[in-house]
Amino acid sequence: MGIFQRFARLPLKSTYIWSLCPQYSTDLTTVDSALIVRSSQLIQHRCVHSRVMGASPGNTGAAPPRLPFSRVTQEDLAFFRALLPGRTITDPDLLKSSNVDWLKTVEGNSEVLLRPKTTEEVSQILRHCNERNLAVCPQGGNTGLVGGSVPVFDEIILSTSLMSQVITFDNISGILTCQAGCVLENLSNYLEERGFIMPLDLGAKGSCHIGGNVSTNAGGLRLLRYGSLRGTVLGLEVVLADGRILNCLATLRKDNTGYDLKQLFIGSEGTLGVITAVSILCPHKPKAVNVAFLGCSSFQQLLETFQRCRGMLGEILSAFEFLDASCMSLLEKHLKLTNPITESPFYIVIETAGSNATHDEEKLHKFLEEVMTSSLVTDGTVATEATKIKALWSLRERVTEALTHEGYTYKYDISLPVEKIYDLVQDMRGHLGDMAKNVVGYGHVGDGNLHLNITSPSKDPALLAAIEPYVYEWTSEWKGSISAEHGLGLKKRNYIYYSKPSEAVALMGSIKAMLDPKGILNPYKTLPDNIH
Amino acid sequence: MGIFQRFARLPLKSTYIWSLCPQYSTDLTTVDSALIVRSSQLIQHRCVHSRVMGASPGNTGAAPPRLPFSRVTQEDLAFFRALLPGRTITDPDLLKSSNVDWLKTVEGNSEVLLRPKTTEEVSQILRHCNERNLAVCPQGGNTGLVGGSVPVFDEIILSTSLMSQVITFDNISGILTCQAGCVLENLSNYLEERGFIMPLDLGAKGSCHIGGNVSTNAGGLRLLRYGSLRGTVLGLEVVLADGRILNCLATLRKDNTGYDLKQLFIGSEGTLGVITAVSILCPHKPKAVNVAFLGCSSFQQLLETFQRCRGMLGEILSAFEFLDASCMSLLEKHLKLTNPITESPFYIVIETAGSNATHDEEKLHKFLEEVMTSSLVTDGTVATEATKIKALWSLRERVTEALTHEGYTYKYDISLPVEKIYDLVQDMRGHLGDMAKNVVGYGHVGDGNLHLNITSPSKDPALLAAIEPYVYEWTSEWKGSISAEHGLGLKKRNYIYYSKPSEAVALMGSIKAMLDPKGILNPYKTLPDNIH
Repeated sequence: MGIFQRFARLPLKSTYIWSLCPQYSTDLTTVDSALIVRSSQLIQHRCVHSRVMGASPGNTGAAPPRLPFSRVTQEDLAFFRALLPGRTITDPDLLKSSNVDWLKTVEGNSEVLLRPKTTEEVSQILRHCNERNLAVCPQGGNTGLVGGSVPVFDEIILSTSLMSQVITFDNISGILTCQAGCVLENLSNYLEERGFIMPLDLGAKGSCHIGGNVSTNAGGLRLLRYGSLRGTVLGLEVVLADGRILNCLATLRKDNTGYDLKQLFIGSEGTLGVITAVSILCPHKPKAVNVAFLGCSSFQQLLETFQRCRGMLGEILSAFEFLDASCMSLLEKHLKLTNPITESPFYIVIETAGSNATHDEEKLHKFLEEVMTSSLVTDGTVATEATKIKALWSLRERVTEALTHEGYTYKYDISLPVEKIYDLVQDMRGHLGDMAKNVVGYGHVGDGNLHLNITSPSKDPALLAAIEPYVYEWTSEWKGSISAEHGLGLKKRNYIYYSKPSEAVALMGSIKAMLDPKGILNPYKTLPDNIH
Repeated sequence: MGIFQRFARLPLKSTYIWSLCPQYSTDLTTVDSALIVRSSQLIQHRCVHSRVMGASPGNTGAAPPRLPFSRVTQEDLAFFRALLPGRTITDPDLLKSSNVDWLKTVEGNSEVLLRPKTTEEVSQILRHCNERNLAVCPQGGNTGLVGGSVPVFDEIILSTSLMSQVITFDNISGILTCQAGCVLENLSNYLEERGFIMPLDLGAKGSCHIGGNVSTNAGGLRLLRYGSLRGTVLGLEVVLADGRILNCLATLRKDNTGYDLKQLFIGSEGTLGVITAVSILCPHKPKAVNVAFLGCSSFQQLLETFQRCRGMLGEILSAFEFLDASCMSLLEKHLKLTNPITESPFYIVIETAGSNATHDEEKLHKFLEEVMTSSLVTDGTVATEATKIKALWSLRERVTEALTHEGYTYKYDISLPVEKIYDLVQDMRGHLGDMAKNVVGYGHVGDGNLHLNITSPSKDPALLAAIEPYVYEWTSEWKGSISAEHGLGLKKRNYIYYSKPSEAVALMGSIKAMLDPKGILNPYKTLPDNIH
């Protein structure tokens, strides 16, 4: 085993993030059509893109023409100011950071940012907007990667940032109920003091809001162990487009009284309602946590290591993540992180979480002995102390950040049968040849979820044309998902047909029409243009 | 510790069940109104009940008047016979067992039972029925307890019993895809041979269909460990009311491309579509399983034992179930089962499932030592061998069966904060006094789910009037669910307002109207009468 080395771990705070990549922007205007093949059916689908009418002409994105919503008037502003005194923001400087996404690839030109504190205020805002036909963009921590959390044109930004109260926590059941604007890391800290943890964890924890996590059905690093939010979220309070408050804020593990309405709002990216409060089942804080950082000489060996790991670590396995050698190079180059083990084509982060430190260490050491003696793993290091664990995790969590220093990054978040996930990276390398600066892969092996990132010194329409629709066709051929955990947002809405049949998309359109007949909630997002 | 004793375990096969309780029937006609108090709002809701026009006049249930659906004609039968030669059943004797529920409390008088083998056949059946305005009752293993799986009047019975093929199983990911009519126990056996298990287990496993399990969002004995079907079901194929086939049969752990439509069909009891195929994530078969059967002298001590158990067994805890002394008496009296430990007011069944037998036994013994030396537990026995494990489990699983020998049973399936669950049993005993023969409680402590059963020598309208709405008001006051895992079906549809606000119920009605505008799918079920 290599010698353990210390690294500083910087959670992705939004204040820090904003300075990362001023040159970041995307232009998908060249991709105006896609031939989509799915199973036995052939669907010809035209993706209509047009420039975002952003405040900053350098930042463009893929968007359809503005829909005929009303424009905000002085009367509207007077209404908002009376409802939210001091919390109706119209100063362009203050609005700037809410108008642009984390990757700086989508920029809207909203002139109003509303910061309600209560569900009743959200209800009154939406009732007014619905009556006036004013479009609204709900916004949490604004850490999304698909342009779902920022206005595309002049939508009113409805921020949950002041809705940050914990409502109740039951330390017998572990059920937390809180407002939607609670920052994930704050909730984690709150729970850890009480012997519990959040069932989800992700790199953006320092900024993202639980309401946004639920709205986007965030996956993250603990899904392998604790399952998706569809199982752990027990209740939601939601304000519908017309201002009606839907109180499904149950705190019960089981409830089969009628249809489970909250599921409609999990993962629908704010297009069906605005989540104002969440109740969620939180696991006990594990008594022992270990992290192993291992090297493998091939992806096949990595997969074999995964199989052995599941068998030998079983119920204590809480994460099985990977990054490739290209990711490690970027971490070393841009963030000055040090590889704690000898160089390998692939690196694995394995986390165990259990109730008995001795048992867990015994299981882990037996597993490590097996994979090292059978040469599946070439080198490795283990951490049991919190600071060292954080340092090892940072090698996986900060890949996204390292990539932003490379110039322009085309990002893909793909679900595939686990044995296929790295084939896509290798095929893409062969397919793109010298056109791309880097083609890197990392992600959640345990969930069959690959983050494929392709970098280029600057925007490159020819490169983009070589990547898309190739990447989507490849994914569709293997019955994968073109968005495993990031959602569709603005950027990927028109690619939905690669992963969903047209009957399903049509039904989604019917649900949207039922819940938001005027379409005021987060327009231009999630559903394809041909649905509107 | 007590000495372990053997018991025969009889899974609840339908052939066996039918002979259990011929005298079983329910009459709710006397309960014609209920004053429902929920949170700060007061909703006056009229529950309209009328006699079921069953073939057997002795069997009645709560039902509204027949809705104006068409009657089956000779032309309809000719269509069905051409589509399903030899699988269109009209012989009244053959139809009898499909017309009555497991508890023999609801009996319809359907004259047609259809047994499709393929999704395409289901699609053609529903297209025809929708065009002709013929009502349809989808039926799986017909093991439901709320009258959801049998016709109320003359609805055509659409059985999934011949749709019993496993489609694919991936032994790397553990993802099973199968037709809806697969019997749960058959799937369990299929998986166990391959080193996996189903993520759910329940007493009716020998008869229930996976499609029915998903349609009713079945809970069962493993929910504590593997979570609900909302997390483990990865994909569904569903035929909509008009015959459209919705293929959402994904086999991916993560997929955030648009709204998660399959959630609409999980737990909606066949009222929104007919599930024809399911893909589900199956856990690895644990290498070691232990079951402890323990006695406690009070429910408070049982709860304290639960808390210690969660802390000390942690990730290997797979079930924490209980039954009270009255349940044990019924097991001894009617099923001749023997109590393996000294008599106690409460009994606990704890199951551990893990990857290392030595570690698991060490954890379990340490826990048992602690709870016995601290006198939380008065006596106990442990089983590690399969036959003995089954025998201990039968003490919990066969309570339902033992109750059927007591005469008439009023059954309630309640979710509450775990510390409140036995208070309801005790309050009910005080409230009913000598009116009831038995008031017993058992269920899933780990999920806060109580099965409250009240027996009487025969049907007793006065007793029923004393139980309801008392039990629902009590549950509502503690923000519980009046149906934790059984669903609403026919029997409990009008009590939905005790657990759901009127806005939510109204939205459910809109969803029903959108997906099944003629209301042909499982009418009179799940939604209250005032929605239709």
